[in-house]
Amino acid sequence: MEKVNDIVLGLDIGGTTSTFGFVDQEGNLLAEDKILTLADEPVTRFLPRLFAGIRALFDGLKAGYTLKGIGIGAPNANYHTGNIENPPNLRWGPVTNICELLKNEFKVPIVLTNDANAAAIGEMRFGSARGMKDFIMITMGTGLGSGIVVNGKLVYGHDGFAGELGHTLVNVNGRFCGCGRRGCLETYVSATGIRRTVYKLLADYMDPSPLRKVAFDDLSAEMISEHALRGDKIAMLAFEYTGRILGMKLADAVVHTSPEAIFLFGGLANAKDLIYQPAYQNMEAHMTPIFKGKVKLAISGLQGKNAAVLGTAALIWDELEQKT
Amino acid sequence: MEKVNDIVLGLDIGGTTSTFGFVDQEGNLLAEDKILTLADEPVTRFLPRLFAGIRALFDGLKAGYTLKGIGIGAPNANYHTGNIENPPNLRWGPVTNICELLKNEFKVPIVLTNDANAAAIGEMRFGSARGMKDFIMITMGTGLGSGIVVNGKLVYGHDGFAGELGHTLVNVNGRFCGCGRRGCLETYVSATGIRRTVYKLLADYMDPSPLRKVAFDDLSAEMISEHALRGDKIAMLAFEYTGRILGMKLADAVVHTSPEAIFLFGGLANAKDLIYQPAYQNMEAHMTPIFKGKVKLAISGLQGKNAAVLGTAALIWDELEQKT
Repeated sequence: MEKVNDIVLGLDIGGTTSTFGFVDQEGNLLAEDKILTLADEPVTRFLPRLFAGIRALFDGLKAGYTLKGIGIGAPNANYHTGNIENPPNLRWGPVTNICELLKNEFKVPIVLTNDANAAAIGEMRFGSARGMKDFIMITMGTGLGSGIVVNGKLVYGHDGFAGELGHTLVNVNGRFCGCGRRGCLETYVSATGIRRTVYKLLADYMDPSPLRKVAFDDLSAEMISEHALRGDKIAMLAFEYTGRILGMKLADAVVHTSPEAIFLFGGLANAKDLIYQPAYQNMEAHMTPIFKGKVKLAISGLQGKNAAVLGTAALIWDELEQKT
Repeated sequence: MEKVNDIVLGLDIGGTTSTFGFVDQEGNLLAEDKILTLADEPVTRFLPRLFAGIRALFDGLKAGYTLKGIGIGAPNANYHTGNIENPPNLRWGPVTNICELLKNEFKVPIVLTNDANAAAIGEMRFGSARGMKDFIMITMGTGLGSGIVVNGKLVYGHDGFAGELGHTLVNVNGRFCGCGRRGCLETYVSATGIRRTVYKLLADYMDPSPLRKVAFDDLSAEMISEHALRGDKIAMLAFEYTGRILGMKLADAVVHTSPEAIFLFGGLANAKDLIYQPAYQNMEAHMTPIFKGKVKLAISGLQGKNAAVLGTAALIWDELEQKT
């Protein structure tokens, strides 16, 4: 009976906000909150605010819960070292051992990985990948993240950074990417990517579109999705184009690890069939015959839920169970 | 002392020849032989010839050896089921349970995988990947095969066919591939691929070249390599082009599983720097920054050895040790 009161903290550190919540072993989110990350601040000013927020949230729980561990999702997170290394959207410097900093405060086991890897573990523990041993999770937000599961375990790889499918190559001479390269998948397939595609299509086509009245900085993936559902040609073409590139690259991903399924998560996945149909058709069209018709493509079972918190909670639950 | 006399059989079934040899636990190849596969024959005619060959080879060994298991490498080999499924170069029909057929004859444990996967296991046990947990093996022969090792284990995936990097996409409108698609990596990077490249270059350029006197069917990768070493422009350009495409796609492979190293094996790898230099330069040039300078690219430690037999032997040794 005591086990029911064991909980973990799932913490997702993002460029804008950091979200955290207490989750039990069955995946119930007991309480959650968030604070502004204030990316321009050093980590030393972020931490006291974070610790206060976590303690306040814990104090609000009914009595009897025990915190057993903390799972953290963050950009450029190294699972092996517990370091966040040169995070692109945070001014935290080259190396922050976030695990150690939280361990000093809370005295519990801490695990770190990037948000897409955490989402994959969340999908496996609390979502649609329950019982699956080989699958790929694709998260489409500002960028495109991915987590690859092989034989029931997340692939971290030698450097702890495996599963960066957002940086596979679509076109050598393609769009400039935040990583410094050109033509990376996430410059096409992400909330930012589809905005770039809309602008390219507005340049290429002459058709009228309500999107012609929206400045690039005001345009959002949700807006494009709404216009596509209302039949706007530019918005529909943008999803078709985005799905086509995604499907083509998923066919490449499949031959690496032979997954049973691929799950799509995040803002762009909210558009459901608008992205799913062209992605599936093009994945199949580009698939080498030995894999044709064998790989499921599905919207994540965590879609609409707080996958970042559930995923990081699943990450630490997995670690705690392996140790017992 | 008895263990020293335990041996396994490594068997590689190819479209032209089938090679087999007895290998001890330290990777010593005690005896080897081969027979013609005679791909037009049904498997029922192949097997008696194979069994006779294996028995004759065993009889030639000095007394005291015990056969403990057999590892098999074959095209379209399914590790999970023990089946060879629709092999492209053999008229064996849709499904042959080769493991069962050999088990009935020799009464020892049998394991099956494709030749590139076997080579990866061979590299890990007897080659340059000793002690590595995450690496990729690329075999370049008639086609391009690959074996991916994650956390010390070969990735088979849900369908048992993981690691088919020869069928990642280079160009949607590219060369026709034996798999039925267009633009697969192996249509560019393989012994066959570089021959196609030489013919394209002979068409594109006007430079004289001794290769203009060679018919397509007579052209070999070794011939191209020899001419490149003598400074023939067409042959040199062919290696440059082949290495460039290989490097570009290896950068994509790296972001999937974050390997410590990538090993190149097979006919094309004999050309050493001719293929290595452009492959490494282009891998680095196309690598997303987080992986730059971190991944070794090297010629296989089994290069020049009978990797097919050593690899399949390593495969069955691994299985036998896991069971004890």
